[in-house]
Amino acid sequence: MVRVLGVDPGLTRCGVGVVEGVPGRQCKLIGYYVVYTDPDDDISLRLLRLDTELAALVAEHKPQSVAVERVFSQHNVRTVMGTAQASGVAILAGARAGLPVTTYTPSEVKAAVTGSGVADKKQVTGMVTRLLGLDAPPKPADAADALALAICHIWRGGTRARIEAAALAARRGARR
Amino acid sequence: MVRVLGVDPGLTRCGVGVVEGVPGRQCKLIGYYVVYTDPDDDISLRLLRLDTELAALVAEHKPQSVAVERVFSQHNVRTVMGTAQASGVAILAGARAGLPVTTYTPSEVKAAVTGSGVADKKQVTGMVTRLLGLDAPPKPADAADALALAICHIWRGGTRARIEAAALAARRGARR
Repeated sequence: MVRVLGVDPGLTRCGVGVVEGVPGRQCKLIGYYVVYTDPDDDISLRLLRLDTELAALVAEHKPQSVAVERVFSQHNVRTVMGTAQASGVAILAGARAGLPVTTYTPSEVKAAVTGSGVADKKQVTGMVTRLLGLDAPPKPADAADALALAICHIWRGGTRARIEAAALAARRGARR
Repeated sequence: MVRVLGVDPGLTRCGVGVVEGVPGRQCKLIGYYVVYTDPDDDISLRLLRLDTELAALVAEHKPQSVAVERVFSQHNVRTVMGTAQASGVAILAGARAGLPVTTYTPSEVKAAVTGSGVADKKQVTGMVTRLLGLDAPPKPADAADALALAICHIWRGGTRARIEAAALAARRGARR
């Protein structure tokens, strides 16, 4: 059982989702949040607020690991710099808490939860709702994306863990 | 007299320059540094190292204010996301220390120290050397750029301070 805090970085809206689970099984929703910062505020106040809120959520939920969506320069050019700065602050929040931080591309997340790297937002939200056994989809979409990231990390970490376990078993077998 | 810490953000090399002065006069060099992080390290370790080093330099030099170069998406596409993440961490380092943080575009900095917004690196380094009264140019260039940012902030802050003082005097005069 692993508890993961997923972050869909953004300066105006930053989605955070906390999920617990084991690979390939239904996961358990612990909580989800959206951190808002005021576009009229100074960039330094906005990043400080994001840092403070993320540190508080990490302290509250004590995840074993943090997953952050990777930002590309192909994103919306007008907002991409703010999104990249927010992602830097999110990655730092995990690192300062001494946690491993993994970044995933949007297609890796989509593929992990829907089976298709080009799934749309609605499909992702639908699968997140099912995979967490929720009665209604989480809102807003930033929160659903953050939950998808956390699920992606649990499942892919599981894949990695199985590969490592198999490799270890093979080495042990070879030694016998 | 104001002491300013300037940051030329970068993930592999981050320039830091500390300068003291008053607007329009030769400034005093307090120190300059380049924080290096290993491109082979995980992004979370790199941002954590940058955060730790910047916090230590702020604590050591106790500037009244921090100036950070603004990053544009027109920059080198391969490195721009890392540069933007580093700038987020640099802005946050100032904000977490309770300091005002100002961002400047490269052309604002060039115009402030050379009189031309399209000056090249050599001209900027030459002017920084003269304005700080140094015997030799600061090296590497990342450090010179960080020093130019700090000088730019001192001089422009001075302009703003004079405008505000004049406006205040005018209002006081109007009340008499």
